[in-house]
Amino acid sequence: MKPATAQEVIEKARLVQEAARVLSTADTATKDRALLAMADAIEKEKEAIFQANAKDLGEARGRGLAEGFIERLTIKDKTINEMAQALREVAALPDPVGKIIMGTRRHDGLELIKVRVPLGVVGIIYESRPNVTVDAAGLCIKAGNAVLLRGGSEAINSNIQLVKIISGAARAAGLPSGCVQLVETTDRAAAEQMMRLNGLIDVLIPRGGADLIRAVVQNATVPVIETGVGNCHVYVDAGADLAMAQEIVFNAKCQRPAVCNAMETLLVHRDAAEEFLPEAASQLQQAGVEIRGCERTCQLVPDAKPVTEDDWYAEYLALILAVKIVDSFEEAVSHINRYGTKHSEAIVTRDYDRARRFLREVDAAAVYVNASTRLTDGGQFGLGAEIGISTQKLHARGPMGLEELTSYKWVIFGQGHLRK
Amino acid sequence: MKPATAQEVIEKARLVQEAARVLSTADTATKDRALLAMADAIEKEKEAIFQANAKDLGEARGRGLAEGFIERLTIKDKTINEMAQALREVAALPDPVGKIIMGTRRHDGLELIKVRVPLGVVGIIYESRPNVTVDAAGLCIKAGNAVLLRGGSEAINSNIQLVKIISGAARAAGLPSGCVQLVETTDRAAAEQMMRLNGLIDVLIPRGGADLIRAVVQNATVPVIETGVGNCHVYVDAGADLAMAQEIVFNAKCQRPAVCNAMETLLVHRDAAEEFLPEAASQLQQAGVEIRGCERTCQLVPDAKPVTEDDWYAEYLALILAVKIVDSFEEAVSHINRYGTKHSEAIVTRDYDRARRFLREVDAAAVYVNASTRLTDGGQFGLGAEIGISTQKLHARGPMGLEELTSYKWVIFGQGHLRK
Repeated sequence: MKPATAQEVIEKARLVQEAARVLSTADTATKDRALLAMADAIEKEKEAIFQANAKDLGEARGRGLAEGFIERLTIKDKTINEMAQALREVAALPDPVGKIIMGTRRHDGLELIKVRVPLGVVGIIYESRPNVTVDAAGLCIKAGNAVLLRGGSEAINSNIQLVKIISGAARAAGLPSGCVQLVETTDRAAAEQMMRLNGLIDVLIPRGGADLIRAVVQNATVPVIETGVGNCHVYVDAGADLAMAQEIVFNAKCQRPAVCNAMETLLVHRDAAEEFLPEAASQLQQAGVEIRGCERTCQLVPDAKPVTEDDWYAEYLALILAVKIVDSFEEAVSHINRYGTKHSEAIVTRDYDRARRFLREVDAAAVYVNASTRLTDGGQFGLGAEIGISTQKLHARGPMGLEELTSYKWVIFGQGHLRK
Repeated sequence: MKPATAQEVIEKARLVQEAARVLSTADTATKDRALLAMADAIEKEKEAIFQANAKDLGEARGRGLAEGFIERLTIKDKTINEMAQALREVAALPDPVGKIIMGTRRHDGLELIKVRVPLGVVGIIYESRPNVTVDAAGLCIKAGNAVLLRGGSEAINSNIQLVKIISGAARAAGLPSGCVQLVETTDRAAAEQMMRLNGLIDVLIPRGGADLIRAVVQNATVPVIETGVGNCHVYVDAGADLAMAQEIVFNAKCQRPAVCNAMETLLVHRDAAEEFLPEAASQLQQAGVEIRGCERTCQLVPDAKPVTEDDWYAEYLALILAVKIVDSFEEAVSHINRYGTKHSEAIVTRDYDRARRFLREVDAAAVYVNASTRLTDGGQFGLGAEIGISTQKLHARGPMGLEELTSYKWVIFGQGHLRK
């Protein structure tokens, strides 16, 4: 690694850690004032943001990057409004820090309380969308954490400008500017250094595609929260309300196919297949969905392509759907537990016992009866906002809001109490 | 790595994962029956355990291992009773699995509940004490987890015998014997393989000295809970009740010096030093404690040795104490936040504001006013039992009981609900 890179990462991490100490005891009013100031500053200085973004867009076009990629990279007036609005919404949410989770008093008078505290320094490694820069910083600061960001190289000019604006606004509102810092070196070495900064970074949250997340999990020695890879299933049970099933299946696949809680595989009980599949598949195909089916599916659905073993593992994030006809409820559950990524899984059924068994036996962050997997979301779940969707079991599972960005400490009041 | 080692680890991990699926939906009565059967079996088959242990002890003596080490390795009648008793106590604790943590109903009728579920497969990498084999297995099973154990080579015969007995008892009680498995290969490669079994192990908990824990943190790609390294401080404030301070300091250092929540550094405000230190130090010295003091301490305490920078970082786990006289409350807090390991920290004070500031500003799992750091313990905190003391901020902090061995899932009841 270049010494300059190593030095930038270390210096910024130290600055962020120092800021985290201040932020951990900052009062709610100061944090909210900083968030509102950040929102105002983004609106006021939007021309500078557009200019920096134009530079990124020019380079991306010069390199011939795909239109979808350019789209995600682009900051428009609407993006500015959404970023500012997101910060204002986070400011309006309750402060999780200092909340007393539980308390207890022993016979001998020793009193113990468990109090929510910030995590400390949160590291975020993410890809091209520059709005993540602002959204992640806002959530971290509200939860009392300082944040070290490392975005993708394609958005580097936009990110530098955004962080300059929001850290300046935070400082003007009375917080240290170290509460948001960006690693400006975008080579791989800088990211890998962040992953091993034990003692300086308390938790690392990767946000992006499966490859990024895998790289972080494989290389990090800092604790990681794995987010967002979703190979989600909908299982249509025998005897299900097929009109409801068709609506849920269509919503789960088509409402926004490029996101982690979209359905990637449809499982249908053999007793429902003949009545359900031809019509449901035709509606999906009319919306542009390519069907990849098992042998029996291909007999029922015109234009279905034969599915391969790889398809069962695939997170398409696109208008493609794998379809399997299963012989039993048990086969559906074991298919999901084998190929799923423990994100969001749904059953459509009228059967009480199978509904309860599905909820218990399927191992996933969110398990649904008669609802779309697309509902897995911090906003939809009432958390106010989310920094990502955890697919691991440690710390937090499913949508992560402000509380999931905190830890706790035990506070003990004694009067000369000793261990006997 | 030898192919046989790799194969043993993988095969056992698969067996444990299969058992975890069964355990995750096992009812409380079955789990408790298994725990009680394990306790009975250990008592009934104690001669076989003594025989296996004698083999380990013979080899340890042959290699000239230290007496303290031999002591920790030895299984006596008392050890058998304690292991059986621990299992019976865990059986009597409430089952954390299935507990509804919270629930909410949206305006549109969608109902969401957050339900406690097991973590799945817990991996434990530990050192010489064979009682960990039984204690860890008991806690994991009660929380619905299957456990893959990897103990130290010095206890291998004892561990093989213990696991044979308890997994047999579990099977006889109706649980799969895969719910407790031991990796019998004790070379480093086997442990390192366990650390990278993503997809098979859900969480890894190292139990042992600082070197073991560092090795796991550095090498694991599986999520880890860091436990048990404690460089704990007691700070005696100006104006403190010095009689109380002396009791707390003596208890924190001497009640059991070899454990993680024992005090390693004493900080004394300069205004209290002259009255407090000579007497407190003399009492400690009479109990065999070696004092390593800052310059001013050495002037007040006869026979104190000069402290070095390394001493401030040291976890002695022995009758040694570093002592520093500080000029202010702030200096004490910043010393603790700089050198501490975020385990257990105490202030002895009569001042209300400084008590509250200490609790807020010191970053540790447990922060105390007027009580001994030795109280940080699952039993003392009312958790019933503990699998270790977490010094990280992710997932759990401080003593980890049954609840801390669980995760949660979101369970959602809809009636055709879609994402709009």
